[in-house]
Amino acid sequence: MNRRPTGRILVIGAGLMGTSVGLALSRAGLEVLLEDRDPGHVRVAVSLGAGVPASRADVGGADGPGETDGAAGTDGAEPDLVVVGVPPAALGTVIADALERFPRATVTDLGSVKAATVVAVAARAPEFLDRYVGGHPMAGSEQSGPLAARADLFDGRAWAVTPHPGSRPEAVEAVEGLAATCGAFAVPMAPAEHDEAVALISHLPQVASSVVAGLLTTAAEDHLVLAGQGLRDVTRIAAGDPDLWSQILAANAEPVAKLLHETAERMHQFAVTLEKSVPPAETELAAPGAPDLRNVLERGATGVRRLPGKHGMRPETFASVPVQLRDQPGELARLFADVGAAGVNIEDVRIDHSPGTPAGLVQLAVHPDAVPALLQALAQHGWDVHG
Amino acid sequence: MNRRPTGRILVIGAGLMGTSVGLALSRAGLEVLLEDRDPGHVRVAVSLGAGVPASRADVGGADGPGETDGAAGTDGAEPDLVVVGVPPAALGTVIADALERFPRATVTDLGSVKAATVVAVAARAPEFLDRYVGGHPMAGSEQSGPLAARADLFDGRAWAVTPHPGSRPEAVEAVEGLAATCGAFAVPMAPAEHDEAVALISHLPQVASSVVAGLLTTAAEDHLVLAGQGLRDVTRIAAGDPDLWSQILAANAEPVAKLLHETAERMHQFAVTLEKSVPPAETELAAPGAPDLRNVLERGATGVRRLPGKHGMRPETFASVPVQLRDQPGELARLFADVGAAGVNIEDVRIDHSPGTPAGLVQLAVHPDAVPALLQALAQHGWDVHG
Repeated sequence: MNRRPTGRILVIGAGLMGTSVGLALSRAGLEVLLEDRDPGHVRVAVSLGAGVPASRADVGGADGPGETDGAAGTDGAEPDLVVVGVPPAALGTVIADALERFPRATVTDLGSVKAATVVAVAARAPEFLDRYVGGHPMAGSEQSGPLAARADLFDGRAWAVTPHPGSRPEAVEAVEGLAATCGAFAVPMAPAEHDEAVALISHLPQVASSVVAGLLTTAAEDHLVLAGQGLRDVTRIAAGDPDLWSQILAANAEPVAKLLHETAERMHQFAVTLEKSVPPAETELAAPGAPDLRNVLERGATGVRRLPGKHGMRPETFASVPVQLRDQPGELARLFADVGAAGVNIEDVRIDHSPGTPAGLVQLAVHPDAVPALLQALAQHGWDVHG
Repeated sequence: MNRRPTGRILVIGAGLMGTSVGLALSRAGLEVLLEDRDPGHVRVAVSLGAGVPASRADVGGADGPGETDGAAGTDGAEPDLVVVGVPPAALGTVIADALERFPRATVTDLGSVKAATVVAVAARAPEFLDRYVGGHPMAGSEQSGPLAARADLFDGRAWAVTPHPGSRPEAVEAVEGLAATCGAFAVPMAPAEHDEAVALISHLPQVASSVVAGLLTTAAEDHLVLAGQGLRDVTRIAAGDPDLWSQILAANAEPVAKLLHETAERMHQFAVTLEKSVPPAETELAAPGAPDLRNVLERGATGVRRLPGKHGMRPETFASVPVQLRDQPGELARLFADVGAAGVNIEDVRIDHSPGTPAGLVQLAVHPDAVPALLQALAQHGWDVHG
């Protein structure tokens, strides 16, 4: 029942997320107005093609609390939909303000935490709450600001749509339509359920990554030389914006704290098991891992296999073929030309980081059925598989 | 002072690591003999070109404990170097056995934990300990077995070389030569220091990844739909072999347990801080993150920046340029051909996983100086940057 948005859409907050929404909607041919406390952000977003600057006059609406009843504006140009993409701590105020300024508009947001936002909006604008429906596109970046925005940020991503019990059905449809128009698929979910889900799949990994990465600050430089790809992957998201993340985590404090306590408890427990398994050093190496250790690791492997992959395939159903290439312009072109000519579709690519090496190793992930054709094409063109 | 190995090299244990060493040494033109408890592993390794099967006669050496003094063999073909690539729990026995069988050979291993191995070898073959020097190539895979082996597994990687105080200098040189011949760079380190280093940069991230991934086993399927790239990265290594990892962790129990306790304590502390920051739900959203939260996250970001990147560059010094492509054969070829023609060197490539999407987004990482040329080339050929 998705309704493509019609009429004007106002995006408040021209950061990474808001600007990306502007770009995606503009790509779809819609009229987007941009507003931000920081005029520099609006200028950048406009220059990227995310929309046009919204002045108060442009978008109708009341200029202050005293005029909330005359908000239709001089030219009837009140937006049908307002998308709020501001930092978590400001969401309640800005959403409530938008509901007051534009009495006919549906208002949604892009925030990472949903239940607290409903409460905050309800406290400020209870009479307009029916026109508010939360949203959370499951896409982002370690980067921030309008310059990092992309029209395709949401393509193929989930976009949680989180109505509260009082949300109007047509407002829910409008937000689902927004998600679809931005290239995402809407996933309807109650606000509290959403928060519980992201506590596990987004907020816990963020804190775990940050805590592990934090221990690197005091590591000897010599020791870091030994770092491999595993550590890099585990700590990549720890590079995210600390200000933004501290707000997100504080807004979802309860579910995140619960999971952190559980994770910490399991780590403590694992450490205790390890301590008990210390081998009598003078005589024996450790016996094959205690069942308690093995169970924790096995459970982790099982958990990873549950993650949906590209096209909904589970990641392990792709086969990975390693190909050696020299580190010079044109090598990748030659490789992909040879592979493409054979009609093989590459599902994923990874270049292994090898500090100081002149050569690169590319991992090509393909559908298992495509492996024979791929290997044949590689052999035929002299590519070095398996070294 | 690296000495390229000469003469025969015996690899005991034809799994992922041992077979990769065999492939790398064979690539360098050296004579490699392969031995494994499992004849199937030897067959696979031989078929990949990692060496030839070693029978007891081939490699000289004593057949049993009763003949350790006559180990030079019938044709003087005792190996100069023995590389032991067996599971952690078997290392002490197999290394001590090799030292006895080949009284002139240097013996090294590929194990992930070094101090306990020295102790285990010393307990079994104290009179031959001077010819043992530990080694640990910092490369691997979530996969295991000889089929996953690659000649280039060690190219450009660190290879820890861990002599004990009684190791002969020429034995140390032989192992450094082995590392160099396999394409790696030797990093000399005392065994205990090595174990402390890998506890932080390898073993802690492994357990953290497994514990976080383990919590996914009980997650609702609906919630997992929201999973993004961050969770995938944090949990990737949790797919590793639980048997192998439980042995590795048990063999480095003390340093790992210490770090796990510290990590768990920091997580608990973070959770407590979060609980204190729970906003009065009826009135306010969370205030901007408490300094205590922000500090932990900031510290993580600082830790990540310390990791050396490709070519020794820090990862953040590469610029990332997103390019949209259709999900069909030939698109990557066309992209890289256009980029290669412009003389731009791609340092890293990532295709974002987008469940259910027909389109792909490629992140091209390049040296910052190369960005203008890259953008120009992309624009010129009609590629969609920034959407």
